[in-house]
Amino acid sequence: MAVRIGARTLELTEDVRIADFSSTVGSKEGAGPLGRSFEEISEDPLFGERSWEKAESELVHRTVTRLLARSGPADVIFAGDLLSQCTASSFGIRELGIPYLGVYGACSTMSEALTLAALAVDGGGFDRAVAVTSSHFAGAERQFRMPLEYGGQRTPTAQWTVTGCGAAMLTLGGKGPRIVRVTPGIIVDAGVKDSSNMGAAMAPAAFDTIAAHLRDAGEKPSDFDLILTGDLGYTGSELLRELFSREGTEIGGGYYDCGALIFDREGQDVHSGGSGCGCSASVLCGHILPGMRDGKWKRVLFCATGALLSPTSVLQAETVPSICHAVEIISEE
Amino acid sequence: MAVRIGARTLELTEDVRIADFSSTVGSKEGAGPLGRSFEEISEDPLFGERSWEKAESELVHRTVTRLLARSGPADVIFAGDLLSQCTASSFGIRELGIPYLGVYGACSTMSEALTLAALAVDGGGFDRAVAVTSSHFAGAERQFRMPLEYGGQRTPTAQWTVTGCGAAMLTLGGKGPRIVRVTPGIIVDAGVKDSSNMGAAMAPAAFDTIAAHLRDAGEKPSDFDLILTGDLGYTGSELLRELFSREGTEIGGGYYDCGALIFDREGQDVHSGGSGCGCSASVLCGHILPGMRDGKWKRVLFCATGALLSPTSVLQAETVPSICHAVEIISEE
Repeated sequence: MAVRIGARTLELTEDVRIADFSSTVGSKEGAGPLGRSFEEISEDPLFGERSWEKAESELVHRTVTRLLARSGPADVIFAGDLLSQCTASSFGIRELGIPYLGVYGACSTMSEALTLAALAVDGGGFDRAVAVTSSHFAGAERQFRMPLEYGGQRTPTAQWTVTGCGAAMLTLGGKGPRIVRVTPGIIVDAGVKDSSNMGAAMAPAAFDTIAAHLRDAGEKPSDFDLILTGDLGYTGSELLRELFSREGTEIGGGYYDCGALIFDREGQDVHSGGSGCGCSASVLCGHILPGMRDGKWKRVLFCATGALLSPTSVLQAETVPSICHAVEIISEE
Repeated sequence: MAVRIGARTLELTEDVRIADFSSTVGSKEGAGPLGRSFEEISEDPLFGERSWEKAESELVHRTVTRLLARSGPADVIFAGDLLSQCTASSFGIRELGIPYLGVYGACSTMSEALTLAALAVDGGGFDRAVAVTSSHFAGAERQFRMPLEYGGQRTPTAQWTVTGCGAAMLTLGGKGPRIVRVTPGIIVDAGVKDSSNMGAAMAPAAFDTIAAHLRDAGEKPSDFDLILTGDLGYTGSELLRELFSREGTEIGGGYYDCGALIFDREGQDVHSGGSGCGCSASVLCGHILPGMRDGKWKRVLFCATGALLSPTSVLQAETVPSICHAVEIISEE
């Protein structure tokens, strides 16, 4: 039974654990600084399929089935992705015969799925819930910009969509990192219209949710070993530091961004860093959760960030409304 | 605190009420058999906007703001729609400053949003949750098929996407119809590849979830005053009757489909009936919930149905995996 603390944060009262997790990435992510962390690195960008969309479904399918094979069946799956009508998720899990609740929060989807999965386990009725999200570089380029064959030029603030998937199994009781509090996001529209600068569009949403979480919980940034945004990239994470500074708070040395961690800034030509639902999901499930299990970090605030645009909204000269959901995870024996 | 009964159904233990509801539709829906039911009928298909996509956002915005103005603020909104990246929802509610959890279940989205909103209120922390979904005929044609200007011909089994929106305010305690049980859907892929026959694709999913709900709850169809599918249309609802008959159960005279109710079969040239997220949402919030409040029906099983396709999955010759979530609502003083 969750209880509200402060204005927006919910504190879980049950013992909700991330009992197991699984990650799969493409070869570029595998060649990056976190390459050794991921469970599977696929050298084949098509994952044995015949289209980028089917490849992403196979990426989801592999990641989830590996998780289920290891840790047993689930009562429900919360899943979502960036493709139109979230087909990477629905086609990826269609054969599993597990109740499915589709979610969409753009690149914030992993923290949204974790929030809902944690509340579902905490709220009773579901003892085991999976949260999973994915993205695929080539599928996202075709979905949001142009097919790769077009050879579009990328601006300095553009980010590189991660080919990756992360899945987490949440259980009532058991072992593993524990989800203790969640802060669902409010849409923040800072008026940014440049869809190649999603870091700038999303930074104010990240600021809003992280500040709300800290305020509601009565904490300061240094109370966390790690505050991790989803995919603000280099541009957006600098802006987030600046937004905190302006308010007289330093977010400090424990702040990192998944999009800034997953690629080598100098060597991998990704401009402002990684992005995509699969960015924060694969970094969380491949790097952070194993690190928490090994005692590297005890208290983590995971804040995936999403730009709620579509190819049509961009063509219609709309702004990029953004959102960020925060999930507080602690290691506890 | 929800408890699982049987294999898949959750029974709520808190007093979760649908305290208020709101509906808006277009002129064709307003001219149909349920026309008098809806709160607002817009004669302007563009809702004062300059594109079909912005029109759908305005449809959501009007429906939700009217609900909030009447029944007070909400702690969270669960919303989703058929447009790519669910922009009707995100742009429609971006100014409200309310925590937003985006959901996607194609045309099953209203029962998914109600399921999650009901579990959120039951599970603690959220006292007031809104569930809202929408669709727009012209936006959906452009999204899934062709812009209207193309003048595409429709097959006999094709359905007409409803221009409509329904929003419900769920509260902990209070008055109004009560949500007592929910059964989340499993993806059922019957192998149907004809995207103009979504009724056939979705009927097996509806059968699966309704049968699971009845089995888990130990009920038979005649225990309900009304079993209501979302948008199987004429074709799909006949198939659903047949699927029950084959199993030796008659779904009976209390079974209706929102897509078959909203238009006049003879006079409105909609082929196999209405469809879209806004079909089941507007029929529920415009016709069914007011009827329950007036004592017309006491016990209703609301089962919105969704075809989990995308324009890309259709072009790639994929099947149409489908899903249905069931929400049991009773009138109780």
